[in-house]
Amino acid sequence: MYSQAVDRSILTPLTFIQRNAKVYSQKVAIIYNQKRFTYGEFANRINCLASALRHAGLEKGDRVAFFCFNTPPMLEAHFAVPLAGGILVSINTRLTSQEVVYILNDCGAKFLFVDTELANIIRPVQNNLETVKHIINIDDLEGFEPLDGEDYEAFLQTGKPTPLSWIITDEMETISINYTSGTSGKPKGVMYSHRGAYINSLGEIIETTLTPNSVYLWTLPMFHCNGWCFTWGVTAIGGTHICLRKFNPGNIWKLIQQKEVTHLNAAPAILISLFNHPNCPQLLEKPLTITTAGAPPSPTLIEKITKIGAKIIHVYGLTEVYGPYTVCEYQSDWDNLMIAEKAKLMARQGVPYIGADGLRVVDQNMNDVPADGQTMGEVVMRGNMVMTGYYNDPEVTERVFRGGWFHSGDLAVMHPDGYIEVRDRMKDIIITSGENVSSIEVEQCLYRHQAVLECAVIAVPNARRGEVPKAFVTLKERAQVTEQELIQFCRNQIAAFKCPTKIEFTTLPKTSTGKIQKYLLREKEWIGYEKRIYGG
Amino acid sequence: MYSQAVDRSILTPLTFIQRNAKVYSQKVAIIYNQKRFTYGEFANRINCLASALRHAGLEKGDRVAFFCFNTPPMLEAHFAVPLAGGILVSINTRLTSQEVVYILNDCGAKFLFVDTELANIIRPVQNNLETVKHIINIDDLEGFEPLDGEDYEAFLQTGKPTPLSWIITDEMETISINYTSGTSGKPKGVMYSHRGAYINSLGEIIETTLTPNSVYLWTLPMFHCNGWCFTWGVTAIGGTHICLRKFNPGNIWKLIQQKEVTHLNAAPAILISLFNHPNCPQLLEKPLTITTAGAPPSPTLIEKITKIGAKIIHVYGLTEVYGPYTVCEYQSDWDNLMIAEKAKLMARQGVPYIGADGLRVVDQNMNDVPADGQTMGEVVMRGNMVMTGYYNDPEVTERVFRGGWFHSGDLAVMHPDGYIEVRDRMKDIIITSGENVSSIEVEQCLYRHQAVLECAVIAVPNARRGEVPKAFVTLKERAQVTEQELIQFCRNQIAAFKCPTKIEFTTLPKTSTGKIQKYLLREKEWIGYEKRIYGG
Repeated sequence: MYSQAVDRSILTPLTFIQRNAKVYSQKVAIIYNQKRFTYGEFANRINCLASALRHAGLEKGDRVAFFCFNTPPMLEAHFAVPLAGGILVSINTRLTSQEVVYILNDCGAKFLFVDTELANIIRPVQNNLETVKHIINIDDLEGFEPLDGEDYEAFLQTGKPTPLSWIITDEMETISINYTSGTSGKPKGVMYSHRGAYINSLGEIIETTLTPNSVYLWTLPMFHCNGWCFTWGVTAIGGTHICLRKFNPGNIWKLIQQKEVTHLNAAPAILISLFNHPNCPQLLEKPLTITTAGAPPSPTLIEKITKIGAKIIHVYGLTEVYGPYTVCEYQSDWDNLMIAEKAKLMARQGVPYIGADGLRVVDQNMNDVPADGQTMGEVVMRGNMVMTGYYNDPEVTERVFRGGWFHSGDLAVMHPDGYIEVRDRMKDIIITSGENVSSIEVEQCLYRHQAVLECAVIAVPNARRGEVPKAFVTLKERAQVTEQELIQFCRNQIAAFKCPTKIEFTTLPKTSTGKIQKYLLREKEWIGYEKRIYGG
Repeated sequence: MYSQAVDRSILTPLTFIQRNAKVYSQKVAIIYNQKRFTYGEFANRINCLASALRHAGLEKGDRVAFFCFNTPPMLEAHFAVPLAGGILVSINTRLTSQEVVYILNDCGAKFLFVDTELANIIRPVQNNLETVKHIINIDDLEGFEPLDGEDYEAFLQTGKPTPLSWIITDEMETISINYTSGTSGKPKGVMYSHRGAYINSLGEIIETTLTPNSVYLWTLPMFHCNGWCFTWGVTAIGGTHICLRKFNPGNIWKLIQQKEVTHLNAAPAILISLFNHPNCPQLLEKPLTITTAGAPPSPTLIEKITKIGAKIIHVYGLTEVYGPYTVCEYQSDWDNLMIAEKAKLMARQGVPYIGADGLRVVDQNMNDVPADGQTMGEVVMRGNMVMTGYYNDPEVTERVFRGGWFHSGDLAVMHPDGYIEVRDRMKDIIITSGENVSSIEVEQCLYRHQAVLECAVIAVPNARRGEVPKAFVTLKERAQVTEQELIQFCRNQIAAFKCPTKIEFTTLPKTSTGKIQKYLLREKEWIGYEKRIYGG
């Protein structure tokens, strides 16, 4: 009706910090050990970092990689990088040198920020970096040799705390790229848009009931789907972030009590270690909401969490959908059920978030499977909570979006009440302690050993880590290698969490055409389990 | 990166009912007297109404007017009309025949739904309806003669409960038109978009902390900014709506206790009548959140509300910004203040919602006034929480959006902490019990009386209704009329709440060029008041 579009503005997480720099200028935004930053200071540091990046030559769309722990710089980057006009690439700190260099080159990072404790991962491959022009050291913990490059705090000093104007002009522009283990064995860069990040952030506020009084403890790595968008969400609501360099169950309980933590997120395997720790209290003094994903929480875990007075929210998603996409919404009539029955219902992946569009479980012809709780199909999703695509890979993007829906590769049933329950995976992915591992990547690694003739890697259930990779290996004639040697061989190449925990030397079952029948191996390993996914 | 846009979907409140029809199919969505509708039934009725509308000839963009109370059909319309492809026009039930017919003709309504109790308002002007083709009677309360036309429940029967596919293709399409008293004297149709309605709904969930356990009592008319978007918001979160035909303080307290109400919204004047009622409990049994707007709540009111254990949230906005736009976010360091000091801070209009974009207080040259808590300027706003414009009035739209910002006509100061405080109005608007009245409209009405030579209408403070219209009248020579006669003369033309409560016969102060100096009249009436706006 009128010339200027003043009736809409870009949906971007940048509005969150812009607002709360004013609204909560004196409120504590971040606590990290003895450090405290108010929202005013947080915003100032973000503006400094953003202007420093621009000053150092960042151009619109440049990729800025962060390889660090859940420290304040990682949070600052979530706003400063897009504010500067860049795209944030936050890298899993558990990866090996080879894996990290692959990601840095694949995304073509111009800037690399590295925690000094991780400098040793970069150093051996520094000459292989094809695009990185600036290295900035985050010197958080004493005793580590930094890389050649600038210091984070000194770098901030080259910027200014005055608010910067935005460079983005379209809410569909990319805000971040998150690498995930691809089924092809190579990690793929999942692109998030400003709009998607915005809507997912509000979704997390609503589904986990964050308020300005919330105190969020960073047990979940921020490199996982930008911390499931809680980096942006907790900031949006004006809550307090408690940063955490490393996960240590005993320390977590202390923090929960000292800092009056109200919310934390973790995979069930992590929660199991937390709830089995001697510091776990009999009863919490304050309400605590725990959101879990990566695998269904077991009845035992649900019972333990509930017993001490905490609330558990079970969500499901994957990197391609900004982290959580469904939530097992609690129905009040479950109150009357016995704990075992209730836990069974709560272990289901549930229903879409308010901000999600469709969720379907479909057969190969894209027809919905019957909602009978029995017929399996693939989980497909679409809408604002789905990635815009894989970076530099239109072909695979096109494939996973076939038929107008994102194909998760997860196999589920649809229950009569509309809740989905994931039972198995089509894709060769193992989820161990909340980390994705591509079986193919592990197999490729094993094949590099001269003694290995053939191999197959599958997920097997494990009480502590949920699932772990197990390898089945046929050796070449007369070749010899021990299980331990082969595991060590893998450890030299890929992240420790990806390496097989067990290797069985055997002949592999095959079809008449010579294809390895992994499902036969899986069947044997999963006897006695209802589902083929496991969270401990 | 790929051909189909599966990474985004239209932001529309239609997704809310689509989701919760499945997620909460068995949960109670609406309670109205002895009636109860689950979300499944609610969705079915919405689908019936939408398909009935299409069947009856509704075409995309047609206006569908509802002239009724806060009964289930009014809620159903908020989803069914946009689902059918139409635009909802919900009309203030306190208006006169002439006022209603003006709105119906101005928006060009094709369908008119009328509560039988209001049939008498329509009947005398039925022949003046220029565009209405279908009249549907909502026969909610016995004893009233319906208009010639169909019955609501029978009309629903002509539709089908099967889900309908949407017609909207762009989230900026209009979902509703809400008429507001214009400063020109004629009501203006404020257009809301699907996108704006969506973002405002999520904003209400977040700011007033609605959860699926929330029970929302409809004390606020749904014809006010679509119930400040709570029609959509409460549905989005899967809460329970308690419908309410009429506001009756004694009954409200009973409902709050019987139905375990957790949330309600009302203007301070309404709250005053509620909290001064003998049924008001000493202490509430369950938490209750009261959101108030239309005028700042007084310290007395804030104290009363807090004392019984309820929480008060003060928000500010206007029809042009979908209802609330700012919220007086509570800061934890206010805990330590004395109640009087705290109430003063809480009576400020505050800071923008998370989903709002900018908020400024500007001088005539669009420069920000200093944040000194003293310098007055006009409140201007923009972004997703601002209307798309006035229906069929590009000229006025252009004017209120001058400089790229929506001009509220409210005068405020900006405090050093970034909170705004509205002190006065530039526009000739009186806000009485939460209803807007155009002084000009009242003056035009008075001028129709043959005895009136000149008149001026202003807002004066009133303990019960906040503000009320007062008229200053100069009679023609030798003409005679009493105060009561003149008030009755107004009542025959305009809604009762718009009529002057007092008339002073006097000569009017004027400038040398003959312009009436309303501000001199106001000054006299507002002696002893800090601000020139008042909520009781």
